Amino acid sequence: MKFGRFEQQGRIFYGTVEGGEVSELEGSILGSYRATPRKHALASLKTLVPCLPPNFYCAGLNYAAHIEWANRRTGGNRKPPEKADIGYRSANALAATGEAIVIPADSPGPVQFEGELVAVIGKIARNLSEKDALSCVLGYTLGNDVSERTWQKQDRTLWRAKNCDTFKPMGPFIATGIDPMKLTITIKVNGATAAEYGTEKMLFSAQHYIAQISRYMTLQPGDVVWLGTDGATEPDLKDGDTVEVIQKDIGTLRNPVKRAKA
Amino acid sequence: MKFGRFEQQGRIFYGTVEGGEVSELEGSILGSYRATPRKHALASLKTLVPCLPPNFYCAGLNYAAHIEWANRRTGGNRKPPEKADIGYRSANALAATGEAIVIPADSPGPVQFEGELVAVIGKIARNLSEKDALSCVLGYTLGNDVSERTWQKQDRTLWRAKNCDTFKPMGPFIATGIDPMKLTITIKVNGATAAEYGTEKMLFSAQHYIAQISRYMTLQPGDVVWLGTDGATEPDLKDGDTVEVIQKDIGTLRNPVKRAKA
Repeated sequence: MKFGRFEQQGRIFYGTVEGGEVSELEGSILGSYRATPRKHALASLKTLVPCLPPNFYCAGLNYAAHIEWANRRTGGNRKPPEKADIGYRSANALAATGEAIVIPADSPGPVQFEGELVAVIGKIARNLSEKDALSCVLGYTLGNDVSERTWQKQDRTLWRAKNCDTFKPMGPFIATGIDPMKLTITIKVNGATAAEYGTEKMLFSAQHYIAQISRYMTLQPGDVVWLGTDGATEPDLKDGDTVEVIQKDIGTLRNPVKRAKA
Repeated sequence: MKFGRFEQQGRIFYGTVEGGEVSELEGSILGSYRATPRKHALASLKTLVPCLPPNFYCAGLNYAAHIEWANRRTGGNRKPPEKADIGYRSANALAATGEAIVIPADSPGPVQFEGELVAVIGKIARNLSEKDALSCVLGYTLGNDVSERTWQKQDRTLWRAKNCDTFKPMGPFIATGIDPMKLTITIKVNGATAAEYGTEKMLFSAQHYIAQISRYMTLQPGDVVWLGTDGATEPDLKDGDTVEVIQKDIGTLRNPVKRAKA
């Protein structure tokens, strides 16, 4: 099943998506909901970010080939992390599919994509074992962890590098019943494949990350866990580009890129 | 004026606080609200965290004497930050006044308080000048940036060190019409003053931090900006302690400390 969050003339609702049709739901997919008889053409609705996360967790470095590429590109010597320490992003930066990624006028660049699998938490959870970790997951969506590499290097934190408004596209839908460790994620820039990887190469599995978080933190419905990206994250993004993060069961997260005027 | 958020038999509402009395409001202090004729004894209500932040910003290092103390205590050589880079905390960790700070069973310690002033954003804001920065602030509350120092040193991020459930007490109330740069913050442990400082010693002012954030991020009603702590953060907290963060216009944020059983 595929859930989405939609807007029609100012009214916001959840729905299930099948092909080009949305069946409207009453209530929230993060609490309780029921079907309605109302159907809409997907193209007639604005697709919103599929949830508004109370907590926004991310894995950061979680694939070896991405770390190796970053070291080659920056002359760095970063080692793979020894354990699944959790990073954070901030909800201000979320953008829906179709919305522009806006590069700030003063960005020295480069600005790059990082296409990621995202676990969406469906129920309150604490102290889960790795074996049971996915029991709290509603489903999976896609994220683009857009990154300003100069600020990432120069600032004391990742605030501007990763959390500028629009730097966190997420969506388009939440797919249920898929195995997060057996997915192929493809990133395209202007229609050409820029990167493609399998989620089985995660250094720490979705299960491991979620179990680790739940040892110290109560997971909440709507929380998201971004699971990292693999490989190179080139070409650099520039005004006029379109970037897509694609997984066949979830759909295509597609965002144009604009540069703000000074 | 002092705003609070309260619960009575499962019903949640905002109110204004005067002495021991709460005047109930209808609506939200983060949107629109109006007075009601309903009055309550403050002691008859559960005081909640005064807002649930969509974005949880923090200054991190923002006072010279705290950095000097931390360097002495840890043998470190941390310099004062050169600019106001923003950090993040996570809403799962919030705790209301009166609720226990729970030290995880596997914490090597020490666990320490950091008493802070917190700006609460009241309206949507972007690109504010320093001069106008406080125009988006609804008022000020208090925060205790509880920190597990071993994890702070050992982990790649501050996730467990700063964001375990209950590690972010915030409250008790939001005071309006006060100058954030002219306040005295007192921290007491078991009734004895452990630290006291004036907010005029911030390295980067509340105005500067808020203006900086707003250059890249849209501030949202309910967002909070924690502004850092000064001086030493001792004695270490242990099971059975009570820690208070006090500012006379805002009130007293008081939390007992417990250690979880293994």
